Amino acid sequence: MAKAPVLTPQAQDFPRWYQEVISKAELADNGPVRGTMVIRPYGYGLWERVQAELDTRIKAAGARNAYFPLLIPQSYLAREAEHVEGFAPELAVVTHGGGKQLEEPAVVRPTSETIINEYFAKWVQSYRDLPLLINQWANVVRWEMRPRVFLRTTEFLWQEGHTAHASYEDARDFASLIHTDVYADVISDVMAIDVVWGRKTPSERFAGAINTLTLEAMMGDGKALQMATSHELGQNFARAFDTRFLGKDGERELVWQTSWGLSTRTIGGMIMSHGDDNGLRVPPRLAATQAVVLAIKEDEAVLAKVREIGAALSAAGVRVEVDDRTDVPFGRRAVDWELKGVPVRIEVGPRDLAGGTAMLVRRIAGGKEPVAVDALPTVVPTVLEEDQELLLRQSRERRESRTWDVSTIEEAVEAATKAGGWARIPWADLGPEGEARLAQDAVTVRCLVAEDGSVPASDDAPGTIAVVGRSY
Amino acid sequence: MAKAPVLTPQAQDFPRWYQEVISKAELADNGPVRGTMVIRPYGYGLWERVQAELDTRIKAAGARNAYFPLLIPQSYLAREAEHVEGFAPELAVVTHGGGKQLEEPAVVRPTSETIINEYFAKWVQSYRDLPLLINQWANVVRWEMRPRVFLRTTEFLWQEGHTAHASYEDARDFASLIHTDVYADVISDVMAIDVVWGRKTPSERFAGAINTLTLEAMMGDGKALQMATSHELGQNFARAFDTRFLGKDGERELVWQTSWGLSTRTIGGMIMSHGDDNGLRVPPRLAATQAVVLAIKEDEAVLAKVREIGAALSAAGVRVEVDDRTDVPFGRRAVDWELKGVPVRIEVGPRDLAGGTAMLVRRIAGGKEPVAVDALPTVVPTVLEEDQELLLRQSRERRESRTWDVSTIEEAVEAATKAGGWARIPWADLGPEGEARLAQDAVTVRCLVAEDGSVPASDDAPGTIAVVGRSY
Repeated sequence: MAKAPVLTPQAQDFPRWYQEVISKAELADNGPVRGTMVIRPYGYGLWERVQAELDTRIKAAGARNAYFPLLIPQSYLAREAEHVEGFAPELAVVTHGGGKQLEEPAVVRPTSETIINEYFAKWVQSYRDLPLLINQWANVVRWEMRPRVFLRTTEFLWQEGHTAHASYEDARDFASLIHTDVYADVISDVMAIDVVWGRKTPSERFAGAINTLTLEAMMGDGKALQMATSHELGQNFARAFDTRFLGKDGERELVWQTSWGLSTRTIGGMIMSHGDDNGLRVPPRLAATQAVVLAIKEDEAVLAKVREIGAALSAAGVRVEVDDRTDVPFGRRAVDWELKGVPVRIEVGPRDLAGGTAMLVRRIAGGKEPVAVDALPTVVPTVLEEDQELLLRQSRERRESRTWDVSTIEEAVEAATKAGGWARIPWADLGPEGEARLAQDAVTVRCLVAEDGSVPASDDAPGTIAVVGRSY
Repeated sequence: MAKAPVLTPQAQDFPRWYQEVISKAELADNGPVRGTMVIRPYGYGLWERVQAELDTRIKAAGARNAYFPLLIPQSYLAREAEHVEGFAPELAVVTHGGGKQLEEPAVVRPTSETIINEYFAKWVQSYRDLPLLINQWANVVRWEMRPRVFLRTTEFLWQEGHTAHASYEDARDFASLIHTDVYADVISDVMAIDVVWGRKTPSERFAGAINTLTLEAMMGDGKALQMATSHELGQNFARAFDTRFLGKDGERELVWQTSWGLSTRTIGGMIMSHGDDNGLRVPPRLAATQAVVLAIKEDEAVLAKVREIGAALSAAGVRVEVDDRTDVPFGRRAVDWELKGVPVRIEVGPRDLAGGTAMLVRRIAGGKEPVAVDALPTVVPTVLEEDQELLLRQSRERRESRTWDVSTIEEAVEAATKAGGWARIPWADLGPEGEARLAQDAVTVRCLVAEDGSVPASDDAPGTIAVVGRSY
């Protein structure tokens, strides 16, 4: 089938390709209030899958879901100095409610550390109440000057975890557990996106944190996207809200806290990690629809067969959809499923029926071949597993092939700009001053890593390397 | 075990009992902004179960989930005259974003008909795009003058479904399908709450609807709670937003629409339907924890046995929790689980071990008896099923025994006020004037029903009966 040029090629204009694929694959639309978005069913189905995979892991880590109010008294934010400084410029403020001006304006939550600490301070009494491990699924609003669908939106959806612990070590270990067993696992294992695990430099930390762990992914154009962060908050919010517990020794001590979030921005990361000039390529474990069975044309035997194949694949545990909309031209439907990145297409026409086969089209690895209909329930799951691994491998290979070890700031800038990738440079050679120099070329330190790829225990641990690049 | 008077008795002060049980069972707290609430993990776990049960049925009805923005330009609401009149007094308004006054204020969505129609008008082109069946899980804000946790909160959580159809009949049938197969099914079958199915009188309809279907439940004090509504919107919003489709006949016609919602208020309904003087009684199908296995005291054999029983019940499909917190006095834990309404407690102490039994305590039917440990995996599921049915039966019996057929407005008022229940009165005898008369005593028409208990096809169908009562 000859390909119609449905999308602007990535090499020609990556940002335009991104906007077009989101629109044509019916993932999202821009909302009417600047920077907001409408997540359409196909896009929301991806988020629902991320939610399900994350929620299971968050609960396995011991946290329970709860819900805190959207509206936060403006005064709460001011209690933690760095926090208010970081978020004040992005706030949406409700000044009127029920037809009257409010005595105290309320902000629409940009994140919930402050309101949650107000309640943690009531709920935590003794060391027996710790650790207190809470998660919430919520929308948050941060006014965006340069919005981009999924990546930077005035309103976005996320989960935000908030925990309180009896010791620094316990809080640190929990932030690390979320980083590795929840976030890295979902992003790599389900979304098939290779990530570098690191810590943020002091200037890139969350407002109010003493340490921010991050997972950074390289997009198709070599730029970085921060996929999820996990913060050690130390006792900063505990101090601001007087969140204390009675220790075993009878002393009232401040709790140690963490917070951590992963948002709909990861959907943008999935699009830019795996998409190609023909559209999305959705990792099989993430896909709400892993395989679609298409009737090529209106024909009673063909329609019966696609339904039969659909039922057989569903019984084999494949998330399958049957496309029997024969009033829409087959070519248009095929292009549409390709755009939507459904991993496997099974096309059935009268000629296939005669041979007892169907055409298996692989969106991720590419290629098509006839497969005996009886073999589909065993072949399709195998193909899905292969293609899941292939996507992760391609993601890793891109990051490895486009990351360069450098020793000067000039080389780092060149790697991130002209070469379109990332540079690794010893943090001791860069430091906060070098970081400021990089910023002049819109290059940032994405994270600090240890030589062996692990997360350094501190900013100034010997051998710490800065991974730098341009970012979304 | 002697009962400590943990709660104000219902008969003494029902509203106070309600507040106390919510607080002591750790379901929710009041939020800092007037009328908002914090849903604590135990309360949110109930809502998660409602969500899961509803979501499955909504998808089975053919709808797909999506997400529309929280913030709606103020001008959108004004486009449908009745809608803006109904919601204007309850709006929360964002006037500032990102440190600047907004050119056009945005309202925090009180419901999403308007913003959704803006997009439906773009997405719907031809009859082939219909029906368009969308649902969203979201928070909404309606400024409440007399807030009450779960029942009337300034912010609440819900799902709101929005659909567009090619004909009046198709829209009407879909609203009815949601009413019966989704809402009535979840409320009766999962939440064990008896409901009367009816239609609202014109004065009680959703602002902008041509018909509102409702499910009304009788609470423990005889008052009514509206559990969920499903609206036929006719072409009102379609006209306001010019949502049209190209019909098979080549004409561009307005779509016919529905919207339907069920919220966290249903959790309040569950509390007031089933709770008693000792706390909640959670229906087994709704309960996140159906059974709890308690170690009576610190003892290695006991601790091993409670874990073994927990594993066996879990393997038998019971949602079970093991309570081995022997550093908390057993009596306190037992009262707490009773307050939380977990349907079954299995208590294990050294003496039980010797006899190979455990004490089975039934929160719903009441009573306790020793059961052979080996029999628990078959006994517990049976008990849960029996108690699920018992709760629904009790709910139905209350409604039936406290509903009276009357023939005058005075009798109706007396039934709803002094007698503390509902009255059934022919709508032809009451009418809008009688409805206004009832309002003087804070009595409302909860819904109109047909003589056989079905939903009347119109307000003036012969034999239509008004069910009247006081309500939350």
